[in-house]
Amino acid sequence: MCNIEKFPIWRVTREGKRHTDDLVTRELPLTIILNNRELVSLLCSPTEQKYLAVGFLSSEGIVKDKDDINSITVDNQRGVVRVEVKEDKKSANELISKHFITSGCGRGTSFYNVVNVQGQTKVESQTVMSALEILSLVKEFQQYSQIYRATGGVHSAALCNTKRILAFTEDIGRHNAIDKIFGRCLLEGMPTEDHIIITSGRITSEILLKVFRRNIPIIVSKSAPTDMGIRLASDLGITLVGFVRGKRMNVYTNDWRIVSDGE
Amino acid sequence: MCNIEKFPIWRVTREGKRHTDDLVTRELPLTIILNNRELVSLLCSPTEQKYLAVGFLSSEGIVKDKDDINSITVDNQRGVVRVEVKEDKKSANELISKHFITSGCGRGTSFYNVVNVQGQTKVESQTVMSALEILSLVKEFQQYSQIYRATGGVHSAALCNTKRILAFTEDIGRHNAIDKIFGRCLLEGMPTEDHIIITSGRITSEILLKVFRRNIPIIVSKSAPTDMGIRLASDLGITLVGFVRGKRMNVYTNDWRIVSDGE
Repeated sequence: MCNIEKFPIWRVTREGKRHTDDLVTRELPLTIILNNRELVSLLCSPTEQKYLAVGFLSSEGIVKDKDDINSITVDNQRGVVRVEVKEDKKSANELISKHFITSGCGRGTSFYNVVNVQGQTKVESQTVMSALEILSLVKEFQQYSQIYRATGGVHSAALCNTKRILAFTEDIGRHNAIDKIFGRCLLEGMPTEDHIIITSGRITSEILLKVFRRNIPIIVSKSAPTDMGIRLASDLGITLVGFVRGKRMNVYTNDWRIVSDGE
Repeated sequence: MCNIEKFPIWRVTREGKRHTDDLVTRELPLTIILNNRELVSLLCSPTEQKYLAVGFLSSEGIVKDKDDINSITVDNQRGVVRVEVKEDKKSANELISKHFITSGCGRGTSFYNVVNVQGQTKVESQTVMSALEILSLVKEFQQYSQIYRATGGVHSAALCNTKRILAFTEDIGRHNAIDKIFGRCLLEGMPTEDHIIITSGRITSEILLKVFRRNIPIIVSKSAPTDMGIRLASDLGITLVGFVRGKRMNVYTNDWRIVSDGE
């Protein structure tokens, strides 16, 4: 895997040092050039760069549909993705220059605006699923997480229906992983509404808003949410499931979508 | 603690649902206004906002010494820190407009430039420490991590000498936590050279560069590094210790600073 590299290290204990090797995940800059203007450089895992670029632009509100994009050119060697979008799309300058730096992955997003831009107030999906289905998806998710298991250095994200994982990816950034999923959905025409997102990372406000933007009714994580993540999920009609560990989970908001298996 | 809030949740297993409470960490925006110009908004834990603002400006190269700062005004209510710096300091615009978005916490930093700006090529400190000292510091670090233990939703960072923790903080962002430590060091005149940084987070390139900027010889984490973190640590003369777990650790670079206890 081009995402992993072997490094010589010292394994040290109180008793002594010994030479061994360790598998380490790779990190590379990716520069997105939008209509011939350098927009941003992301530090990321060097895979699925096209999906990352498109997912980023979509999360930032710069593109909404595949039709907004005239062309995409990926230069893997130089870590550059050039995207040409229709000129009437919202000015990248205006959107990105807000410099809203987030806790977890530094995406320039001003969430109150995102909610307004959306022109929509709630996720209305009637999707429900059982605790067993969530536990089963999370187990599958962990089996997919090969780079994490080898290196401990990445986050994972997946798009699922209630039965199985439809798209999976890993990246050193939890935001990048989610953007890669949504970039793929946009380019390949995979629907997101009525679907489920699983993330290995904590659920902060900006993660919640990325999910809202795609009309996703259920977000699942093995990690913790923040208070702002919970408040937004509650307001926006999203079911937030955290701390999926062992055979249990915490349902923070809109619990009606999660039924216990006896129901 | 103002950093924690109790939320009603459903604890769900295959057998059923029951109501309980969960402690959740808080997340709030902090806006930094530099010389009357809105510079950036960070999503962070609402504590030590003065340290975070100054640490951020210092990590971005906008301030270097306490003397660069004319005044700091914190408005906790509105989540705003106003900083007045001497006008001859590098233009914030120029530095921040690079839009270098990182994997882990979204700080606009262009590392190759950071290294150049520094005018220094290596950390020369002769500090050494034993495996036992590292294990002991990490144990103390974990005892300090109260918000993490209560909520699972934050990162921690600490400045130490080889014997004990001198400054400790927690934040929803791993970058924020480190910036809070360095902001405090700058404002309170705490030296960083010859000292050790412990972080709960992964060691990516931009974390490494923050540490280099403060001439820190040893960085310790219970998590993984990336390849770029390792390469920079190697080049810049920093000892990178990762995966401190149980009674062992991985030393990735400049291992001469870590002696086993028999030596």
